[in-house]
Amino acid sequence: MGKTVNVALIGCGTVGGATALHIIRSATLIRQRYGVEISLVAVVDRELAHARAIGVPEEILFSDLDSVLTRSDIDVIVELVGGIAVAREIIQRAVASGKHVVTANKALLAHHGHDLCAMAREAGRMLAFEASCGGGIPLIRALYDGLAGNRVDAIYGIVNGTCNYILTEMIRRSISYDEALGEAQAHGLAEADPTLDVGGHDSAHKIALMAALAFGVRVEYDEIPVEGIDALDLLDVSWATRLGYVVKLLAIAERTASGVALRVRPCFVHDDHPLAWVGGPFNAVSVYSYPTGHTMYYGRGAGGSATSGAIVADLIAIATKAYEPYFVGGRFWPDRTEPVEQNAPGTIYGRYYVRALVQDRPGVLAEIANRFAEHDISIASVHQDEMPEHEEKLAPVIVVTHAALEDSLRSAVTEIDAMPQVSGGCAVIAIIDEPAEQLIEYQT
Amino acid sequence: MGKTVNVALIGCGTVGGATALHIIRSATLIRQRYGVEISLVAVVDRELAHARAIGVPEEILFSDLDSVLTRSDIDVIVELVGGIAVAREIIQRAVASGKHVVTANKALLAHHGHDLCAMAREAGRMLAFEASCGGGIPLIRALYDGLAGNRVDAIYGIVNGTCNYILTEMIRRSISYDEALGEAQAHGLAEADPTLDVGGHDSAHKIALMAALAFGVRVEYDEIPVEGIDALDLLDVSWATRLGYVVKLLAIAERTASGVALRVRPCFVHDDHPLAWVGGPFNAVSVYSYPTGHTMYYGRGAGGSATSGAIVADLIAIATKAYEPYFVGGRFWPDRTEPVEQNAPGTIYGRYYVRALVQDRPGVLAEIANRFAEHDISIASVHQDEMPEHEEKLAPVIVVTHAALEDSLRSAVTEIDAMPQVSGGCAVIAIIDEPAEQLIEYQT
Repeated sequence: MGKTVNVALIGCGTVGGATALHIIRSATLIRQRYGVEISLVAVVDRELAHARAIGVPEEILFSDLDSVLTRSDIDVIVELVGGIAVAREIIQRAVASGKHVVTANKALLAHHGHDLCAMAREAGRMLAFEASCGGGIPLIRALYDGLAGNRVDAIYGIVNGTCNYILTEMIRRSISYDEALGEAQAHGLAEADPTLDVGGHDSAHKIALMAALAFGVRVEYDEIPVEGIDALDLLDVSWATRLGYVVKLLAIAERTASGVALRVRPCFVHDDHPLAWVGGPFNAVSVYSYPTGHTMYYGRGAGGSATSGAIVADLIAIATKAYEPYFVGGRFWPDRTEPVEQNAPGTIYGRYYVRALVQDRPGVLAEIANRFAEHDISIASVHQDEMPEHEEKLAPVIVVTHAALEDSLRSAVTEIDAMPQVSGGCAVIAIIDEPAEQLIEYQT
Repeated sequence: MGKTVNVALIGCGTVGGATALHIIRSATLIRQRYGVEISLVAVVDRELAHARAIGVPEEILFSDLDSVLTRSDIDVIVELVGGIAVAREIIQRAVASGKHVVTANKALLAHHGHDLCAMAREAGRMLAFEASCGGGIPLIRALYDGLAGNRVDAIYGIVNGTCNYILTEMIRRSISYDEALGEAQAHGLAEADPTLDVGGHDSAHKIALMAALAFGVRVEYDEIPVEGIDALDLLDVSWATRLGYVVKLLAIAERTASGVALRVRPCFVHDDHPLAWVGGPFNAVSVYSYPTGHTMYYGRGAGGSATSGAIVADLIAIATKAYEPYFVGGRFWPDRTEPVEQNAPGTIYGRYYVRALVQDRPGVLAEIANRFAEHDISIASVHQDEMPEHEEKLAPVIVVTHAALEDSLRSAVTEIDAMPQVSGGCAVIAIIDEPAEQLIEYQT
């Protein structure tokens, strides 16, 4: 029998509780399959009622963090307290006392991955974080191992289950954002304060991590433009369906000529792209890489159960020393990469859906079309339904553009917003077309 | 700079050619990202015209296999000759002369994985085969690494791009199997002799490998029941759509109470399951594992470009020594597992689509229904369209069953086939329902 690896879990909430049970229940399987012993020796939380209720053995429950962090018999700590300041300190102290670290904390890594990786590296310890992106989907591994040797060109991810659930329900049942959010909260799929999820910040944390690994560059989290789903109008969600698209909150990372372009925003995804099919709380990430082309990874992006699977995979990779060559030898970790130019969305070309609410007067459409023309934006299609006679209701006018510079588009839209016949601001949603796969092709 | 790993490619066809170019073109990226040097030092083929035409440097081209296999400066050989006897001998000789081996040869591994892994292990060499299943999709890694620690319960794979292309075209354009096959051949997506693909054997090779790794058992390839798509009637493909399903050739592996159940067959997949959405030559594999639940892996399952990505990932994992802990420590490789009971499909419960062509006479439907009832099979739904009056055409009668023992179903169908009013044999297609995800759940 191989080495025993003693594990302490810090934080026993939803993910921590499931992870405790998974480690305990799978110990035999892991021993049989990998010849290593993963032993849960401590579960730490200020409040242990949850841990007790789900059956974590009393003898491994501790409320005093300090005494566990300093125990010399512990090989790995799993940080699951969340947040930034406390989690950061826990990881620093754990590494300082010679422990490997596994974490699911994307916010922390997006902001401080650089320092934490450097500290772990200097101490000869591992820092693993498969669970930080895409819950149970082995996504981080795809980037550092499965697609090793590939040049990643683009990543499009549905990486927030709360948002995807809300959007799926809005589309399926034609309900408003507020109604769908309320239901998500009732089902435990959204927090009481849902800002981090619906505002797109959680997705931004994840794409920051994935982009850094995939492109081997240092990403400044604060430079990522983030737009959530909280301002989405059902009208536009419905128009997406009518035009052959599905609205998804996408976390996007693209390699560009001068650097990388990262952003999080609701997008129209064509309904023949696999990402369009990802429903409910599920996550999926499409990676376009040369020479493999398009690969997509699908699964539960959150929840204790799925996330615990990713955490245990990391524990096994640390215990077997399979992770070490990647963490020690890899040059793509946050502490080993150089800053890169992050292109602002305004400098990127793309297609857009623009919807204005207009008074049904002669000349409005002509004026809107002129605004686009003056900014050199080609219109691909225009849609305006006949309105009932004598109705005072505003008519939606939908314009789908050909590829245009986003700055030009925003300028045109600002002018349209200012038109007296246009009510409120235009809705502007990017349309994501599937990029051409870069494959090795040759004539023989 | 780390160690240089010298690689020889044996076989320079579609996959070999792309792999040669990928290794050469990505050498800098690999050095930068992983700190190892993957150096292509030999490409061997009896016929080198293809290698020359695509630009493999003349100085690394060899037509004499023996002289390359015995070179002491070569660390890894990549076996891409295909077939069984010759490929097996090449691998044995390579291992005997101290080389690691990377192969994409599923047929060989399905039949001789046991011996070849054992031989490599005794010699202290690695045998890696990511490219054997799902082309460029990191699928083998998901089983030994990404889902490490999970109990895999079921695998459903679309793992043959030729079949999936043919089925997609049959559905999309309502064309016959023969017509779709002809087109696939014209587009280079099917071989002149397509038996290995359309007969389901290629899919069977792949599910044998995946099941063995996932379940940690020894699988006898010859015991896998295989049914291809070559007998599929467009009538049934169209009925699938009408009933809310999509016909896919699935390679299936399930953990059962007494062992495992493997099979390859066309199946009705419900159109809300992600596998139903996988179109054209793409592959996807759904893995149901505890506690991660459903994960799916999607990408190009064949073609030189995508497959070369998987091969280079294996080369990097060998060069960095990241693969070693899994290959050396893992107990789930073919040479380290015990035979397992492989349940015959007849002993498994499932739902079925049964279609008979009947003469439109009184009492036919009652008699068909009786046959099912006598074998204890509940009927979920029956479908028979009104036929034009006075037409002599046979009417399709469709019966969808509730879960039934396949042996009982086959007995009922044999009796129905023998009815004088029934013409030809019934079409019988299994319906795959999404299994319940096994997740960690608890009340708090």
